[in-house]
Order: sequence, then C-alpha cells, then structure tokens
Amino acid sequence: MRKGDTLCFAKPPVIGAFAAVGGKKEGEGPLKDGFDQLYEDNYLAQDNWEKAERALQSACAGHLLRKGQVTRAQIDLAFAGDLQAQCTASGYAMRDLNVPFAGLYGACSTMAEALGLAACLASAGLGGNILAMTSSHFCAAERQFRTPLDYGGKRTPTAQWTATAAGGCLVRPVGEGVKIKAVTFGRVRDYEVSDINNMGAAMAPAAAHTLLQYFRDTGTGPEDFDAVYTGDLGQVGSALLARLLAAEGLELARHRDCGLLLYDQADQQVQAGGSGAGCSASVLAAHILPQLLSGRETRVLFMATGALMSQTTFLEKETIPGIAHLVELESPAVRG
Amino acid sequence: MRKGDTLCFAKPPVIGAFAAVGGKKEGEGPLKDGFDQLYEDNYLAQDNWEKAERALQSACAGHLLRKGQVTRAQIDLAFAGDLQAQCTASGYAMRDLNVPFAGLYGACSTMAEALGLAACLASAGLGGNILAMTSSHFCAAERQFRTPLDYGGKRTPTAQWTATAAGGCLVRPVGEGVKIKAVTFGRVRDYEVSDINNMGAAMAPAAAHTLLQYFRDTGTGPEDFDAVYTGDLGQVGSALLARLLAAEGLELARHRDCGLLLYDQADQQVQAGGSGAGCSASVLAAHILPQLLSGRETRVLFMATGALMSQTTFLEKETIPGIAHLVELESPAVRG
Repeated sequence: MRKGDTLCFAKPPVIGAFAAVGGKKEGEGPLKDGFDQLYEDNYLAQDNWEKAERALQSACAGHLLRKGQVTRAQIDLAFAGDLQAQCTASGYAMRDLNVPFAGLYGACSTMAEALGLAACLASAGLGGNILAMTSSHFCAAERQFRTPLDYGGKRTPTAQWTATAAGGCLVRPVGEGVKIKAVTFGRVRDYEVSDINNMGAAMAPAAAHTLLQYFRDTGTGPEDFDAVYTGDLGQVGSALLARLLAAEGLELARHRDCGLLLYDQADQQVQAGGSGAGCSASVLAAHILPQLLSGRETRVLFMATGALMSQTTFLEKETIPGIAHLVELESPAVRG
Repeated sequence: MRKGDTLCFAKPPVIGAFAAVGGKKEGEGPLKDGFDQLYEDNYLAQDNWEKAERALQSACAGHLLRKGQVTRAQIDLAFAGDLQAQCTASGYAMRDLNVPFAGLYGACSTMAEALGLAACLASAGLGGNILAMTSSHFCAAERQFRTPLDYGGKRTPTAQWTATAAGGCLVRPVGEGVKIKAVTFGRVRDYEVSDINNMGAAMAPAAAHTLLQYFRDTGTGPEDFDAVYTGDLGQVGSALLARLLAAEGLELARHRDCGLLLYDQADQQVQAGGSGAGCSASVLAAHILPQLLSGRETRVLFMATGALMSQTTFLEKETIPGIAHLVELESPAVRG
C-alpha cells in the first residue's frame, strides 16, 4: 500500500539470508567479526582492481546461496549495481552467477534501492528468492572518481574512504528473517556542493528529505525506532544531516552512520569516515541485520545515500546531486 | 505469476502514455513522424553533449506528463537509466523532474528493464503512474566508449550508430493503453566477443537466450506474435540471432530490429544500424506502440539488448557480456 512516497507491505517480505565480505582494512575494523569472509590481499588474487571487486560480489553471492540454502537455479532475480562506470563489477559477477539480472545504479544508495525493489517484487509474489547486492573497491573507485593511487594525492579531512566490500541479502515473500516493512524511494536533491572530496555534504540534503518524507508518510518519528542508520554520510554529512533536521524541529538521537561504524575513526585514518556502495551494504549484513536478528534492536530504518555525479560531470563543473532510499526493518522477535 | 524466468501478469498493467524525442539524424529517418519532438541542433542549446542528453530526457518526461495528463506530483516512481558513466543523464534529469527515482543500468537493454520493473510495481498496486525512460546521445557515447569525435576515427562496417534520442512510457495498473502481459528479465551471456565496434554480435547470444526462455516458459512460439522486436542488434547481430535460433530449430519470420528501423540503411550511413539505449526506447514510442494502439499489430514481443562492458574493461581486454530483457505487449484492440 502506498502512503505518499512510501510503500508499506501488508505482508512484509523477509531477509532470509545476508552476507558481507571485505578487504584488509575492513578486517581491521570494529565490525570484522560480522563479516563472512575477509581478504588480506585487496587484489583477491585477480590481475586488476576491477576484477577484484567482481570477485567480492561473486564471493558474497556464494555466501548468500550457502546461508540461504538455495542453489543458483532457485534464484528468481538478482538486483545488483556498483560504482564502476557501466556497473561492470555487477555485470561480470552476474555473468558467472547466471541468474536473471536487473542492473541498478544508485551510487552508494544501491543497497537500499536493491533491497527495496526486491521487497516490492517479493511482496507481490513475483519471486521466491530475490538477491539484492552491491559492492565497492577503494582502488577501483579512487582512480575512477578522483586520481589513481599512484599519483599519491593528499586526502582532505572531508574525504571519505571507499570500502572494499560487498554485501547482499536474499529476500523472500515469507519465512524466517528480518521483516521489510516499508520502502521509500528517494528524490534527487542538490545543494550545489561541487567538491568531490566532500560527498557527505552532497548527500545529506537527500537523506534529510527522504527521512522527513518517510516520517510524514507513516506518521512516525525518531522515537519509534531503535536506530536510524544512514548509508555513508561520514562525520561531515552526519553533522549536516543533524543541522538540516534540527531546522525542521527534529532531533535524531539514535542516529548511526554506516560510514562511521565500519572503521575505527581514531585509529584507521579514514578521514571523515567510510563510503562506497559496499560500505552500507556490508554494515547492513555485518552489523544491522545481526542486531535485529538477535532482538538487540527491534525496529530500525536503513537509509543508504548516493552521490550521482561522474568524473565527466565533475570536469564539466556540475554540482553533485544526492539521493537516499530508505527501508524499514523489523526484528523477527516482534510477532504480530 | 512466475513461469520459469517469466513474470506473467494476471491483470496486465497498461502503457497510459508514451513519448519519443530525437536529434537531427533521427529526424531524417523513416520514423520521424512518430517522434514528439526533433532537434536540429544535437547540443539542444546546452554547452556540452552530456547536458544535451539530459535535456532529451527532460523533454521526453515533459511530453509524457502532457500526453498522460498528469502532473509531476502524480508520478509515484521513475525508473530511468542511460549509457553515461554513473548514469548521469538520468540522475541530473531526475534532479529537475523531482519525483521518486530508482536508477537502472542495463546499457541498451534499459528500456525493456525499466518497462518490466514498472509493470511489476504497477501490477502489484505499488504505483498509479510509474515512469520508465531512457536515452542515449551519439557524441556523449562515442567519446566515452570509443574515441572522441574530434579524433576523426574511421568507423568499421560492423559499428553501430548510437541514437541521439530518448523514449519513455507511463505505466498504470489499469486504464486505456497497450497492455504489458509479461516480462522476462534476462541472464548475462558472453560469447567472448571483444570488438567494441561489433556490439550486435556481443548481444545476439543474450537475445537468443531470453527469447528461447520466454517461448519455453509460456509455451508460445514466433507464430503467436505479429512481430518480435529486438533492441539494437543491427545487421550483424540480427543475422547472428537468426543463426543461433536456427541452430535450435526456430525460424523468426517476423523479426524486426529497432536498430534497423530507426534509420534508412541505404542512405543514412549508420553502418550496421542504430544502437544506444535511446534507440530501442524511441522506436518503441515512435513506432511499436503506435502500431499496437492502432491495432495494425495485436501482439508483439519487445526485447531490448545491452552490452555490459565499459571503456575500462575494454582496456583490460575483457570480453563483452550481453543481456536482453523481454516485454510482451498486447494491443488494446484485443478484448478479454
């Protein structure tokens, strides 16, 4: 049922399985125990970083099939996307997986977009096992969006660290698992930030918009949730989100940002925090869903944020539009 | 209802409105009368080609709203994507349109992917007016995938001409219009073609796979349709598709390729035919849907094909994976 921009599922589909894989730095961070697999070598034994990212997705899909106890033949559809130009990490990973595939591009908002669309199709009875997955790779992203690492460019304090990680979920119409109660697909917002080393600021307005829209659509507020998880606003974007919400009279007490959860801010030198499509996806699978599954949290919002620019639009001096998609998640401990 | 990889809609959603806009060359082709707007200047009064492509989408969306007699506020969700890295034509067009937006990447298969997903959500009652749109721009695509036009590179006979065009549909759960009866989301197929000037050959195996899958899933054959329209296989890919199907004992008598319909093959110097996400999208809106609406054709398959490589994977000597998504369309003249 639609309420404003929010789709509420009368019979909420469930996340039957979830998985996260990551690289070296992710394996040194506070969430390392939540990952299904961690790689010491960020090349993943491939001959370039783009292939390494593809291998992250393939590994993540493998864990999803194993944990969900399904074969490839039982996957009805996969939603996947990534940050590489023309989403090639997903395209090539899906070549190997050989399942029906609908490619997405939502930049770092992709995990929430994929999860939301998977929930829509599952709730409509259009699939029994729908995969939602995304990834990012620090080295592949840096040379694409900023400068190749070999240049040794200095990182600014507002810069965020693109996660080398993939995360995914297996969505089912019914069964055991965390429930997907609702989804809000976001609208593009642009506050005319043009600094590609300050993505958090570019994405915060979209996050504020989608969150306020969801609260308005559903008649809820921050107090109704154990936590509101944003995708990867980092320190700068999180502070800006708080300011934007305060201007609307809203205080977000239990706000957590995936970009600030994945790494140790004091020790891991990630500047303003983590980012990348794989950041929120892996934090979802390595931290948020386990919290809900155990009942330590019962009701949360997961809102991944994306910056919709490219190297070309940056060179053409365009500002950076942001988008945020939101998914409402409920613990299976909540009966009813 | 799912049959194999095919989703069949018990209550088929409809295409309430459709629109196509194009550039100079498209305005000189055989389908020119089917376009809603044609531009003499391929810059569309913008200062670069990327912005020009965005303007194509904005214009197309404007025509969709007008023809569908809806306001922006009545659009529940837009599915859009394009060929630019990070799908920026769509991202920026959606910034202006200001509607909930789910970004897609399916390369030249995007129109069928968008239409299929819009149909899924509409049929599930998750939206009353869902926009599905895509675009491409010859100049933006050439410099991204091959070489900038300024280099004056020679075009090979197998090369295809990226359309400067956008096409879109407004999908509704019920009402007047062409019915969307079923959708088959394709699987990635790779026959190890690595020539970026021969996309047709790279995409034909995916087209063959999806078409055979649909026929098998639904118990139908080519004789059940007035036409099978493929996205943009062009001459080379169409011939290869015929060979691949013949090997499976299938003759596709009423096959039409959007890449061979958009331009005059004898006069317009487009080598093996048209291509680009905007090619199949604009042919859908300028030719196929009018055929169905008038009852000249009653039941057709629209299958857009995409090549999922990037400039980076090409330089890394990867082969080109293809994908094809299929949508079954029925004339409103068919009652029952």
